[in-house]
Amino acid sequence: MANESFIGWMTQIQQTMETALERFLPSADSLPQRLHEAMRYVTLQGGKRVRPLLVFAAGELSGASTENLARAAAAVEMIHAYSLVHDDLPCMDDDVLRRGKPTCHVAFDEATALLVGDALQTLAFELISTPMQGVSPAAQLSLCHTLARASGHGGMAGGQAIDLASVGQQLNLPELEFMHMLKTGALIRAAVMLGAQAGKPLSTAQTEQLDIFAKRIGLAFQVVDDVLDCEADTATLGKTAGKDAANDKPTYVSLMGLAEAKQFARELCAEAFAALEGFGPDADRLKQLADYIVARSF
Amino acid sequence: MANESFIGWMTQIQQTMETALERFLPSADSLPQRLHEAMRYVTLQGGKRVRPLLVFAAGELSGASTENLARAAAAVEMIHAYSLVHDDLPCMDDDVLRRGKPTCHVAFDEATALLVGDALQTLAFELISTPMQGVSPAAQLSLCHTLARASGHGGMAGGQAIDLASVGQQLNLPELEFMHMLKTGALIRAAVMLGAQAGKPLSTAQTEQLDIFAKRIGLAFQVVDDVLDCEADTATLGKTAGKDAANDKPTYVSLMGLAEAKQFARELCAEAFAALEGFGPDADRLKQLADYIVARSF
Repeated sequence: MANESFIGWMTQIQQTMETALERFLPSADSLPQRLHEAMRYVTLQGGKRVRPLLVFAAGELSGASTENLARAAAAVEMIHAYSLVHDDLPCMDDDVLRRGKPTCHVAFDEATALLVGDALQTLAFELISTPMQGVSPAAQLSLCHTLARASGHGGMAGGQAIDLASVGQQLNLPELEFMHMLKTGALIRAAVMLGAQAGKPLSTAQTEQLDIFAKRIGLAFQVVDDVLDCEADTATLGKTAGKDAANDKPTYVSLMGLAEAKQFARELCAEAFAALEGFGPDADRLKQLADYIVARSF
Repeated sequence: MANESFIGWMTQIQQTMETALERFLPSADSLPQRLHEAMRYVTLQGGKRVRPLLVFAAGELSGASTENLARAAAAVEMIHAYSLVHDDLPCMDDDVLRRGKPTCHVAFDEATALLVGDALQTLAFELISTPMQGVSPAAQLSLCHTLARASGHGGMAGGQAIDLASVGQQLNLPELEFMHMLKTGALIRAAVMLGAQAGKPLSTAQTEQLDIFAKRIGLAFQVVDDVLDCEADTATLGKTAGKDAANDKPTYVSLMGLAEAKQFARELCAEAFAALEGFGPDADRLKQLADYIVARSF
């Protein structure tokens, strides 16, 4: 259940992130201006910043500094933002609306949107490879590697390719889960791991438990998205709703039914909580955030 | 002048690179198969591997191991390969032929080509962030950062955006040079720097001299490309020739004239050589390679 302190914390992190992204993004005054303007258009003032919130919540476990967490969170958010820009392109989902605004290729043009995605991905790796205070170079190299593995052919981009190939196909639940584990799950896990690795190191056992949490919550997040897509209308969601069903894409709702999908999300959340037991109160923010993510749809 | 030993060296590096890329790329048997197949299609058996050759030639200065150089070179080549795939897309140059083969979006489809570029970029950062033997984590973090800065909005992608905006525009020589410095020059410089940083560290003075070499040779490479584009026919070049002129894009040939552009390339090459003087025979491969690159057009 979201309480007052959590909402305050979330609002504060969202503001911190807005300032950090503003600072990390290239200025709209510098050349090439149109590219920089479009990079800012798609990244600033957008979204709930779920992945940055996960970075910061996991950062409570490692005692990482706000500066390090903001940098790691900005890198993850830029990977996420690039993927949305490319997903929206006509050759992919052909979406014209995102977060209530015209998508990048509509507001600018397709070639610019292509380059915006490319350049945001690179900027993510530029940020995460900039030396962080209090993190050993070896640990930071591992941060870079974690982000790369989560984003590429064995993670987000691979999941996107499987999603593309699944349109009009009959996927079963394990196949759907594999697709989501890559498409959205991998980056969610990376967000949690980056937050946890941006400060004092965790033990192997702690890292394993945290990874279980991250896997479960990543999957829960996707199930909730499917529920929302089924239930919400365009106005509330700020994007074109019901597109998955219209495209004949398999979802948890279409495979399990609406009530069962909601129950599945609740169970995943309970398992995620259980994995955090050994961390004590340091894990409170992660628990509150998990609660908040799943509660969105109920 | 290319001598027998240089040609032998070059052929050997090209074979080493083919084997390394084959090993670093995801298997075409693993999921998502179509993505992996397309990643291999655009990366294997293609091109002269100029950037990998630069990495290996610069590696002679640092005494870096073949394994480290192959990894760094593969990362640079994947960034280059991704940029070609995205450049060829209909919303950019709309090219159907590359290295004598159908371009990625023709051989596969646009959505796959988009994801291939995205995933190749990520794989480059996955490779360069994998710990290398004999390189300190701090130095390797710097390798990641060098590659990221060269590839993003302040490098290759930024140059691409300026190129895009310059179609039908009257650029002067300084503007053209700025565009190329970002679009192709930044990655050439990164190739040289990665080779030099993948072994024992150079002094600051040496690094500065090497950077002068890399800047000059990067620019010479572009001038030669413009000369080739003007002179070559489709059959020899393996790509649609004369496209720059047809698209009304400014080139060194259109701004300087053909003979002057060739002379400019020779002068840049001489300046590049001069910068290497302090390195002695360790720099022979770099000199031979610079000679070879510029000699292509004469």
